[in-house]
Amino acid sequence: MESKGFSEKHRVTYYETDMNGTVGLGRLVDLMMLSCNDQSDAVGLSSEKVNQMGLGWIVTQNMIDIKRLPRRNETIYITTHAKSYNRYFCYRDFWIHDIRKQELAHMHTVFALMDQNERKIVRIPENLIEPYHSEYATKIERLPLPKELERIDRQKEYEVRFWDIDINQHVNNVHYFEWMLDALDLDFLIKYQPVSMNIEYKKEIRYGQKAVSQAQITMTGVETVKTFHEIKVNDELSCRAVCDWKLRKEEWII
Amino acid sequence: MESKGFSEKHRVTYYETDMNGTVGLGRLVDLMMLSCNDQSDAVGLSSEKVNQMGLGWIVTQNMIDIKRLPRRNETIYITTHAKSYNRYFCYRDFWIHDIRKQELAHMHTVFALMDQNERKIVRIPENLIEPYHSEYATKIERLPLPKELERIDRQKEYEVRFWDIDINQHVNNVHYFEWMLDALDLDFLIKYQPVSMNIEYKKEIRYGQKAVSQAQITMTGVETVKTFHEIKVNDELSCRAVCDWKLRKEEWII
Repeated sequence: MESKGFSEKHRVTYYETDMNGTVGLGRLVDLMMLSCNDQSDAVGLSSEKVNQMGLGWIVTQNMIDIKRLPRRNETIYITTHAKSYNRYFCYRDFWIHDIRKQELAHMHTVFALMDQNERKIVRIPENLIEPYHSEYATKIERLPLPKELERIDRQKEYEVRFWDIDINQHVNNVHYFEWMLDALDLDFLIKYQPVSMNIEYKKEIRYGQKAVSQAQITMTGVETVKTFHEIKVNDELSCRAVCDWKLRKEEWII
Repeated sequence: MESKGFSEKHRVTYYETDMNGTVGLGRLVDLMMLSCNDQSDAVGLSSEKVNQMGLGWIVTQNMIDIKRLPRRNETIYITTHAKSYNRYFCYRDFWIHDIRKQELAHMHTVFALMDQNERKIVRIPENLIEPYHSEYATKIERLPLPKELERIDRQKEYEVRFWDIDINQHVNNVHYFEWMLDALDLDFLIKYQPVSMNIEYKKEIRYGQKAVSQAQITMTGVETVKTFHEIKVNDELSCRAVCDWKLRKEEWII
């Protein structure tokens, strides 16, 4: 059977947007993941069901390209496609389009399956992948990985909150965005808008732990900046990312 | 003209729910406020427009009753009604119903208008209230107020994050819920579910400030608890609340 995509319509609510009137990066990923969740529900493999098997899907890498961030009250189309898989990894693509079919954002994501007790990645059983009609590929994708920080320009500490925890009983990846980007501070986040981001997740964070979010800010042009991010718990790396930004201009926003 | 309500349909997404599979209290208020925002847009008085006049609506008190929290993927109806107003305050009611028209939650809210430069409450101009067809009432409502803490059982510190700030350039009230309830910790929030909450907002919190969230936990029965909350910045009270909880039981959840 041919590989199939899944698409849905969504209206961006006011509380899904920030001071800039647009969706933040973490929320953008939430929106994309919504289509993935809804597809899983539709094929009868909801997170709850996978959870009852003692398993849970986790994301190991996200690569996001942003043409324009969805705006407050905007109606968007979210699409997902479980592209291919091998024994341990699933590769899934996501897109957000506006009502004129213009692409706003694209994300390529690597998923793995975690054993809830062992907290380790396990081989993907056929019955958990078959309903998505992905293509089997023997090769493991070689994606570019974000580089280590050369220096720490900004640093903030984050204590895990109740609302950071997801069905896998650890901090949901999406909250890492808040920690990574909030460390850049308000002035930066108003001045610049994100263009692309590459995030590699290394180790889960549990309730009760304290995370430190470190960032390096490097000008790459007159109006462009690259930021490098690391989240650590007790000096152990949980997440590493690189993000490209451009100056926020009215003509780009409207 | 007769006073009018405003109603809309909403599907609860997975990211609007927590580990319990239901909407948290902060998000519940977000959902209710959505109807208020949409009504304001519909009558041509969006937050952006009010903002351009140098003004902003702020909430001074919320009183919430919860029969059942909306669940992941559930379709709900959100209704709002601008009940009455006087020179300085607007009284607005909110309801959430399920698809069988059963009431899930009800909130009574007091709104005031803030001058964005002076950061002070101002008299409500007729043109900002007339389109809602509220009833003019000379009296100021005397609502019960949450009591001062007698002791501090739990305490946590919260630094304002970029995503806490709203169009009024201060921490949105909704984030106070996260601070107040997260201080109770994971075990408590899994064990108990909220029944009602009364929140009084005293002073705004700005970016760069650090808030301390203090809570008192008092058993009121074998399966019921009352929690008292205060949020302070430099020892100055920003918010005070009282919340009633009952033991989370399967028969209440389903």
